[in-house]
Amino acid sequence: MEHYLERRSQLILEDRVQRVDALRLQNLTELEKGADEVVRKIRADEAKTVWGVSSSSIFDYVPDDMSPNVFPGMAFLTARDVVVNTKLFQILTKMPKGALLHVHLDATVNAHVLLKLALAEPAVHVRASSRVTAESLKGTLPEFQALPLNERTSDSTSLTDENYIRSEWVPLYKARETFSAELGGPQGFDRWVVNALTINPSEAYGTLDTTAKIWAKFSSVFRIAHPLIYHTPIWEEYIRQFLLSSIADGISYVEARVNFLAKHMTGPDGLENVPHREWFVIYERVLDEVRSQLVKEGRADQFVGSRIIYTTIRFVTPEELEWYLEDCLALKQEFPHLLAGFDLVGHEDSLRPLIDYIKPLLRFVGRQKEVGVEIPFLFHAGETLGDGNAPDNNLYDALLLGTKRIGHGFSLVKHPRLMELCKEKGVAVEVCPISNEILRLTSSMPMHPLPVLVNHGVHVALCSDDPAIFGNMGLSFDFFQVLVASEVTGLITAGEFARDSIKHSTLNEEEQAAVLALWESRWTKYLQWIVEEFSSALQP
Amino acid sequence: MEHYLERRSQLILEDRVQRVDALRLQNLTELEKGADEVVRKIRADEAKTVWGVSSSSIFDYVPDDMSPNVFPGMAFLTARDVVVNTKLFQILTKMPKGALLHVHLDATVNAHVLLKLALAEPAVHVRASSRVTAESLKGTLPEFQALPLNERTSDSTSLTDENYIRSEWVPLYKARETFSAELGGPQGFDRWVVNALTINPSEAYGTLDTTAKIWAKFSSVFRIAHPLIYHTPIWEEYIRQFLLSSIADGISYVEARVNFLAKHMTGPDGLENVPHREWFVIYERVLDEVRSQLVKEGRADQFVGSRIIYTTIRFVTPEELEWYLEDCLALKQEFPHLLAGFDLVGHEDSLRPLIDYIKPLLRFVGRQKEVGVEIPFLFHAGETLGDGNAPDNNLYDALLLGTKRIGHGFSLVKHPRLMELCKEKGVAVEVCPISNEILRLTSSMPMHPLPVLVNHGVHVALCSDDPAIFGNMGLSFDFFQVLVASEVTGLITAGEFARDSIKHSTLNEEEQAAVLALWESRWTKYLQWIVEEFSSALQP
Repeated sequence: MEHYLERRSQLILEDRVQRVDALRLQNLTELEKGADEVVRKIRADEAKTVWGVSSSSIFDYVPDDMSPNVFPGMAFLTARDVVVNTKLFQILTKMPKGALLHVHLDATVNAHVLLKLALAEPAVHVRASSRVTAESLKGTLPEFQALPLNERTSDSTSLTDENYIRSEWVPLYKARETFSAELGGPQGFDRWVVNALTINPSEAYGTLDTTAKIWAKFSSVFRIAHPLIYHTPIWEEYIRQFLLSSIADGISYVEARVNFLAKHMTGPDGLENVPHREWFVIYERVLDEVRSQLVKEGRADQFVGSRIIYTTIRFVTPEELEWYLEDCLALKQEFPHLLAGFDLVGHEDSLRPLIDYIKPLLRFVGRQKEVGVEIPFLFHAGETLGDGNAPDNNLYDALLLGTKRIGHGFSLVKHPRLMELCKEKGVAVEVCPISNEILRLTSSMPMHPLPVLVNHGVHVALCSDDPAIFGNMGLSFDFFQVLVASEVTGLITAGEFARDSIKHSTLNEEEQAAVLALWESRWTKYLQWIVEEFSSALQP
Repeated sequence: MEHYLERRSQLILEDRVQRVDALRLQNLTELEKGADEVVRKIRADEAKTVWGVSSSSIFDYVPDDMSPNVFPGMAFLTARDVVVNTKLFQILTKMPKGALLHVHLDATVNAHVLLKLALAEPAVHVRASSRVTAESLKGTLPEFQALPLNERTSDSTSLTDENYIRSEWVPLYKARETFSAELGGPQGFDRWVVNALTINPSEAYGTLDTTAKIWAKFSSVFRIAHPLIYHTPIWEEYIRQFLLSSIADGISYVEARVNFLAKHMTGPDGLENVPHREWFVIYERVLDEVRSQLVKEGRADQFVGSRIIYTTIRFVTPEELEWYLEDCLALKQEFPHLLAGFDLVGHEDSLRPLIDYIKPLLRFVGRQKEVGVEIPFLFHAGETLGDGNAPDNNLYDALLLGTKRIGHGFSLVKHPRLMELCKEKGVAVEVCPISNEILRLTSSMPMHPLPVLVNHGVHVALCSDDPAIFGNMGLSFDFFQVLVASEVTGLITAGEFARDSIKHSTLNEEEQAAVLALWESRWTKYLQWIVEEFSSALQP
């Protein structure tokens, strides 16, 4: 028996030797061991007290058991209110998260906040395809636009008025004020708008419960929000809100994907004439202001900066892509410190696969050498349930093109050779647990393939993707879902994910070393805090 | 570009080289190529015509889109009625399936048929914990029992009568005849019973939509059905129905798991005194009768036999297990050709892990040598969403104990070293796609880890597990769900799964060679039939 147990321990060790936490777990400090134990204990307790409430058991089935369908790692939109009240979540909100490497800038600020920002802008107008009534409310989407002075009218009516003319523009603040009391007045207006800018549980888990349908709603959110966010006065405040809320959640560095499909955004005058380089200028200005503010508050160690990943969308033609690649190149030359890399985004299941763009992308690599810059590819790939279809095959092209990281890589676990390649080439996967679940690639975290990647030794960084739409602001929610869905992955592994997010950023070696040093010092304090604050959890 | 495409093809080849179909796909005959193409074309057509009906798209979101949430490989209980009307399913019903290696005998015959068999037996009685009324119907479960003559009464009342005495036994046929008209009369009785013996979509995808809750119902089905099936007159007919329906679906050989937990079943006289050896005797008699019948009908090539896998349940103590192991040993000596192997079954998430039983199981291996028999382990392991919890760790013990196959192995993809071990030791995984989905380990087939196993070169046999409860009679439904959820896996791969099911059975080498030869000849005819019958699908 002793011999058997020895062989067993040996086999488990061999099986887990590729994990990023393997070495560290064998050499834990007392502090690490202590904090890890506390978190494991709290997780185990809450698995019962918070998530284990069914009155049926396999020995005693209660046919009319009406207890809620809850379990650790369950569907996030239903679980969110429960999650925020757990001890484990409170612990994770304080965790220094490292870098946030996969987030779409235009889905990072709470929809209520965005609406508030927009209400302050006189240029912003709203319209609907027909009068909004109790019957049409659910089926009608708002459309926003910043208008130049000569297109604004002073005598517009209410969206809910019987005299509303199909598609007539109404100033945003006025549309809100005059929204019919029958439909809830201004609060009803807010609900209508926020519902169009977020995904709710009855959509994700009910009416739109397929990857194709939920993506239709998801894309619609981006289309609706776009004219608001890509309006310079809002853009500026939006970036500030995003950075401040990230820092508040313990994120030290951000590489944000920005959508450069539109060649201009609107300025304060409502004219659509602000070119891409101005977007960078504003981004940099806000970044500097945020940094100065942190310095003043003595919190300089909490944030080291942010970069932009240039993206356009996978429905441009290969010919159209050439323009964007040259644009990206020019911006990299002007803002070398600010432009992190290049990506193509959008719904992989229905848009063009990477293979369509090989020629311009290979030429782009050559052009970088000519010009003397380096713009790493950071491709979305394998964000699909497919096995051997075009979006799954994007993984081959992303890696052959030399991508530095893979966005999502949900289907990567189906590719043994590609997982090896990721390890050989130091390619990390930007895993977005809650995004994958809400977009119906998985129904809950315990079904998510993350442990397959981790146990095969693929490096990952946890990411939030589109927190404004999903409600997973910061990274605490994603870390929470990952931690409750595994007995192997604990606090120590979470720390390794954070380290890996820094090591796989586009920062250069010295920059990374500096960020890591800052992070390590915060991490140690964090572990101390856990042990001091929660070690009573270990009492019997 | 040409060079790029070459590298790409090479990489895809390397990535898929471990698959069981890799070699065959490079050397297809014209017939294989033709049949595979036909099936791919039909699958692609039906992906649109049958499964693609949403009115939303990512370019045009329709907020009140009320089209059904359908897609290929979607939740089986909702999809079943659609599946049976597809061309692809009609093709798969005719496929020679090879061996069925993972099925629990007491969940193999349609619940309506079981009820009919039971109604013919005068010893069979039914009772309820209290009078069945419109209000209590949903929350009350039937309990069955074959009673000896002296315990039967002639003056029992109806289950629905206001004079019904709590837990009073009523003859089954009488309970049905006298079931209150208000509750639907005899048809209402049938509905009540069948509902207790099956899982319906509103349970699996609604009220009981967690692995723990659906397992409570699932276990309850076994408890309720047990006294019916383990009554010799029903047992005999039940086995016959199971074998005949398997043969009708193209299955040539079956290894059925039988639950030997109860030491006796009831005989025709209602006395619980029929020992395990009699169960074997009856099984063998039915088997011989079925074979003779097939010979008479000139269909001898369609079925080569069946064996029993001895199982008991993971709630017995290690001490109690000793009795079962000795019992199994004795039965193997008496029925060497009929007893295939040994397994421990039941809900891995809540019952004892294999590690609890190591001592008796190791002793069992020694006892086999003493006695001169070989009883391979065929352990359930890893039928869980867990990562590093006890049921996930069962995989280590199953392999260390030298299991010949793994039942389910749902969490095996999380174990790189164990997947290697399976390949090194020729251990196949009995994958039960529809079972995993209905028991909520996955929400649909595209989320199932099967492609991860296959692409890593692990050998699998597709299995139905508990078709009477899930409605996936035969193997056609499981093959269907697997085929529509992958673009890599086609008819050729399906053929390899069938071959692997024979190669990983407990039949010896000569037996396997004979079965394979029969199968190959049927397979060729099958491919010819597909091409002849459906090649019009290839016309533009």
